[in-house]
Amino acid sequence: MLVRLLYASKARDPITNETIASILSQSRKNNPETGVTGVLCVCHGGVFIQVLEGGRDEVNQLYSKVLHDNRHIDVTLLDYSEIPERRFSGWRMGRVDLDKVNTAVVLKYSEKPRLDPFGMSGTVALKLLEELASSASIVG
Amino acid sequence: MLVRLLYASKARDPITNETIASILSQSRKNNPETGVTGVLCVCHGGVFIQVLEGGRDEVNQLYSKVLHDNRHIDVTLLDYSEIPERRFSGWRMGRVDLDKVNTAVVLKYSEKPRLDPFGMSGTVALKLLEELASSASIVG
Amino acid sequence: MLVRLLYASKARDPITNETIASILSQSRKNNPETGVTGVLCVCHGGVFIQVLEGGRDEVNQLYSKVLHDNRHIDVTLLDYSEIPERRFSGWRMGRVDLDKVNTAVVLKYSEKPRLDPFGMSGTVALKLLEELASSASIVG
Amino acid sequence: MLVRLLYASKARDPITNETIASILSQSRKNNPETGVTGVLCVCHGGVFIQVLEGGRDEVNQLYSKVLHDNRHIDVTLLDYSEIPERRFSGWRMGRVDLDKVNTAVVLKYSEKPRLDPFGMSGTVALKLLEELASSASIVG
Amino acid sequence: MLVRLLYASKARDPITNETIASILSQSRKNNPETGVTGVLCVCHGGVFIQVLEGGRDEVNQLYSKVLHDNRHIDVTLLDYSEIPERRFSGWRMGRVDLDKVNTAVVLKYSEKPRLDPFGMSGTVALKLLEELASSASIVG
Amino acid sequence: MLVRLLYASKARDPITNETIASILSQSRKNNPETGVTGVLCVCHGGVFIQVLEGGRDEVNQLYSKVLHDNRHIDVTLLDYSEIPERRFSGWRMGRVDLDKVNTAVVLKYSEKPRLDPFGMSGTVALKLLEELASSASIVG
Amino acid sequence: MLVRLLYASKARDPITNETIASILSQSRKNNPETGVTGVLCVCHGGVFIQVLEGGRDEVNQLYSKVLHDNRHIDVTLLDYSEIPERRFSGWRMGRVDLDKVNTAVVLKYSEKPRLDPFGMSGTVALKLLEELASSASIVG
Amino acid sequence: MLVRLLYASKARDPITNETIASILSQSRKNNPETGVTGVLCVCHGGVFIQVLEGGRDEVNQLYSKVLHDNRHIDVTLLDYSEIPERRFSGWRMGRVDLDKVNTAVVLKYSEKPRLDPFGMSGTVALKLLEELASSASIVG
Amino acid sequence: MLVRLLYASKARDPITNETIASILSQSRKNNPETGVTGVLCVCHGGVFIQVLEGGRDEVNQLYSKVLHDNRHIDVTLLDYSEIPERRFSGWRMGRVDLDKVNTAVVLKYSEKPRLDPFGMSGTVALKLLEELASSASIVG
Amino acid sequence: MLVRLLYASKARDPITNETIASILSQSRKNNPETGVTGVLCVCHGGVFIQVLEGGRDEVNQLYSKVLHDNRHIDVTLLDYSEIPERRFSGWRMGRVDLDKVNTAVVLKYSEKPRLDPFGMSGTVALKLLEELASSASIVG
Repeated sequence: MLVRLLYASKARDPITNETIASILSQSRKNNPETGVTGVLCVCHGGVFIQVLEGGRDEVNQLYSKVLHDNRHIDVTLLDYSEIPERRFSGWRMGRVDLDKVNTAVVLKYSEKPRLDPFGMSGTVALKLLEELASSASIVG
Repeated sequence: MLVRLLYASKARDPITNETIASILSQSRKNNPETGVTGVLCVCHGGVFIQVLEGGRDEVNQLYSKVLHDNRHIDVTLLDYSEIPERRFSGWRMGRVDLDKVNTAVVLKYSEKPRLDPFGMSGTVALKLLEELASSASIVG
Repeated sequence: MLVRLLYASKARDPITNETIASILSQSRKNNPETGVTGVLCVCHGGVFIQVLEGGRDEVNQLYSKVLHDNRHIDVTLLDYSEIPERRFSGWRMGRVDLDKVNTAVVLKYSEKPRLDPFGMSGTVALKLLEELASSASIVG
Repeated sequence: MLVRLLYASKARDPITNETIASILSQSRKNNPETGVTGVLCVCHGGVFIQVLEGGRDEVNQLYSKVLHDNRHIDVTLLDYSEIPERRFSGWRMGRVDLDKVNTAVVLKYSEKPRLDPFGMSGTVALKLLEELASSASIVG
Repeated sequence: MLVRLLYASKARDPITNETIASILSQSRKNNPETGVTGVLCVCHGGVFIQVLEGGRDEVNQLYSKVLHDNRHIDVTLLDYSEIPERRFSGWRMGRVDLDKVNTAVVLKYSEKPRLDPFGMSGTVALKLLEELASSASIVG
Repeated sequence: MLVRLLYASKARDPITNETIASILSQSRKNNPETGVTGVLCVCHGGVFIQVLEGGRDEVNQLYSKVLHDNRHIDVTLLDYSEIPERRFSGWRMGRVDLDKVNTAVVLKYSEKPRLDPFGMSGTVALKLLEELASSASIVG
Repeated sequence: MLVRLLYASKARDPITNETIASILSQSRKNNPETGVTGVLCVCHGGVFIQVLEGGRDEVNQLYSKVLHDNRHIDVTLLDYSEIPERRFSGWRMGRVDLDKVNTAVVLKYSEKPRLDPFGMSGTVALKLLEELASSASIVG
Repeated sequence: MLVRLLYASKARDPITNETIASILSQSRKNNPETGVTGVLCVCHGGVFIQVLEGGRDEVNQLYSKVLHDNRHIDVTLLDYSEIPERRFSGWRMGRVDLDKVNTAVVLKYSEKPRLDPFGMSGTVALKLLEELASSASIVG
Repeated sequence: MLVRLLYASKARDPITNETIASILSQSRKNNPETGVTGVLCVCHGGVFIQVLEGGRDEVNQLYSKVLHDNRHIDVTLLDYSEIPERRFSGWRMGRVDLDKVNTAVVLKYSEKPRLDPFGMSGTVALKLLEELASSASIVG
Repeated sequence: MLVRLLYASKARDPITNETIASILSQSRKNNPETGVTGVLCVCHGGVFIQVLEGGRDEVNQLYSKVLHDNRHIDVTLLDYSEIPERRFSGWRMGRVDLDKVNTAVVLKYSEKPRLDPFGMSGTVALKLLEELASSASIVG
């Protein structure tokens, strides 16, 4: 049974590009084994949105790790559902930096040019990610 | 929560191109901060249609200002709804002069070649604005 | 409120091309003022189908004139409805001669190669006119 | 081919109950032959809405008579369509006096307690008549 | 053209039952003339939701008065649309006190037992009012 | 923003009726404040399904507590979505013992008479809970 | 494969009640074997509508017999389609005399009180028969 | 009223290409007058499928002729319905030889590479003919 | 994952009521363990239709046994699909004798009064079983 | 009646490319006669998915052979339905090796990069095969 999980979180401490690169490289190393795919969306100010797709057990285990990881605070589930097929199967863990995306694309789904996932619908957040995927804004 | 608000108004006094340009330049200065986007549609005889998209509080505050602004009369709400995504996110405040648009486009939605927003459905007025947006009739 | 009205009629006396040209030129002179647009479809044997689009009052006044015009007989309403947008906004009064149209197009909607609007559904007659519009068979 | 036609009109001169009764009794006498059925809805101030159902030729002939009858002014078509089945087949010509109907029923479809058919959508006017039919407000 | 407008507001000063009764009695006196109907929903702490139905001009004039009335603050449009028929035509201005309604009904649409219209979708607020109407919780 | 969250878990140690009663009484004490409502469904062998409805932050905080509670193992998210209205607003925390429910009801959604939520779709598990709610199998 | 066939015909010579009774009694004798069911609808002036349901071969054989039977003229197919289930399975061959049916029921589908199947849509004719079936107007 | 009729038949005696050509040339001579259009689909072993489109009377008269023609046996109606527009208006009587069509096209709708219309649904047979029309397999 | 499987078969040798009773009693003994539910529908002449619902593995194992059981011939799958919920969860193995059912019910779905599952669509066969279930024709 | 059947199986013994080639060549020899078409999808570790399309009897006979063939174990029906048209009519028996397909395509429908048909929905497995067909991954 495939599921898709979307959550937002904040970093407890300031985050550097190196930290992000290390998170991504670790995901990319583990995911081929677990079959999990997804995208990490870096917002401003240490805020993340992440989408995870894969088997229900594997995705739940990853989400549990996030909730137990003290470097994240305010971890909030945005969307979760059983899916007949993945939309992000091409990325072991893709990356997108919202601050580098055209403002008009962000504003299409967001109240302010700086996206605040904690104040927005999960359904809308997922649509933003899908538009980014279809417009080649995600880096493999 | 994103909303879209569409209203019509009349200018109490004759309006010059300079006045319109000044309204637009002020909007464009303020909107990046408030995240509001939209289009000002200049009809004949000092009549306007304006569409505003953004956070519910920000859009309501702008509309309240319009209602308290003595230069406008007959301010009339045409349409208002919560929206999953914006349709005019690319314009901090676009401008379209209906008198310069092909008459067949105006007549498609209007009884007369000179559009009267006060006598027409808000749903239809919105469709006209969307057709103008998709046919590149809006100036950034 | 925009409406579309479709009716059929027969000429009491034989009709020449000059008469038709004069009807069209009069329509084209009046319609810009009233905002009415439409198409006159000339069938064989002095039979017409005409579609009128515009404000409800203006279209009703035109149709009343037709019913009081002694040169028309058997005036029959085929279709009438309130419409969110026009389909024939590009013609002040277009003209199409069915006898010059490919027979396969007429037969698509008609029992016989010579169209008889009095024996056919108004919904189907409208579809024929729309196909003619989309295939550039209407002369401006 | 069955059609339903809905129109509004105003009486040129003040109308008495006797006049209305005579209109109705004439309709009821003629309609069994022509197969036309319908309802006459008497609004305030000499305004009428009438719905006619029947064969296309019969209904068009009746409507043409109304347009040629000098006692009516502002005759305006509200709705007309081909129908698979009638909704008012039980009345040779029913009658309803809007002023005797519960105000909440009229307001459900009307801006003011005194219905103005000339300022309202034909689709909505038809819904009002259907609600009156289903709530037994029409007199045989 | 009928519209429905739903807004929330806060009273600048504490509000007594007498004040509410006076607001309602004034509405009930004026509305028969304007044809406006609706419901005033009294939440806790001086917060109101009000729904107004009627002609577009009449409803806009009432809403403009609310925005210019200094006793209201944070006036926020929740929902507005053109409607084919009213849902609250039976109340010149009905009243409902949310604090007297079964908590399960409020919680069905609200995050907390004390409803906060400023943090909720207008579509959902309208559904709550409709459920109250259909369960006879509105006082004439 | 209202959400509904459905999860399954297993108790690390054998569970007594007293433990369950204590979990429920604690929920019922806390939930009026947080506005969370829901149902605890006790399966056989220390397996639970729980549905939680309420504000997004409140429901996420509760789910995080469950994931950090060592008495639960194999905590697995079954379903999660933003909802326009609650379905379980009448229970601060209802209780249902699947073993006391008619076998035909359980089998309607389950492969075996002893329900295994870890091997079933979350959508189906939610349907089972809704059927239990509508058939009065939930104890307040 | 089940099919339903609906046709109209006229009797070449005047028809008596005895003839109709004999047609029906013959059908009722043969149909149990062939599995054909249906209804014979007697209109005025020797006109019939008959609906036949059953296996495709059996229904085609019956229809071929009708077309070869010199007592019928103007035999015209009104409707024919493959069906997942019968609507007239309860009648080996039911009978209905339209002249004995309430006029309002006939007029609901017909231009005139005397039904003319040759001038009406087969789809509408079938709806009339279904209404007769559901209102117990068919005699076993 | 336009109808489409689809039937299958078998030739009593072996059929030559000359016979087929003569059938087609006769149809093409008569049809312009009657307004009937269609396609003759030649299967193997003297089996035909033919589709006829046109006025209801004209199509019924043609089908009656087929049923009275002794050269045809097992004449079986496959599909018949009133249609808003024709699909085969371009062929006075087109011809397609199934044996010359790509086997994959036939198998898409047929159990065996040699099509047996007597064992297949009329709806499916019509789909096959439409695919042949859209892939230019029909000869004018 | 729940599935529903519907098949038809014929008994190689004449079948007595005792044999049927023994089949049913064996099913009813085994099914509580496997969680399989269903209905055995006894047609005339040693023909059966059986519907099986349960886990995918359990239903496949049962169907494989049927295919290997020499007492059955012509075993033919009629329908099979993954289902969100069972329709026959109330019967460990119900029984219905078609010959005791009202003929009109059988004819509703069958060409002949004696049902032949080998010549009918599986979708239709399932509908017949559902109608029997809802009309209490199945014996527990 | 056309049906489509999809099943999974495991080879009892290790399978070589020669064995697969021999299976395929046998199918391709027999299928033109039976009219069966389909695709054999070779997964890793001796696991197969096969889709068969054709007449109901022919497909059932093939599936029965598979169930009686001792070289296959765990034969499990994934999907089966009556179909109006085939999707794999172009392959007498196509072949696809999942291990040679882009991992992203497999992951789109599968929890792990190595597809396990026994743990997945038949509906999803069919979608994967259709995507492979439309992306030219099937070898004739």
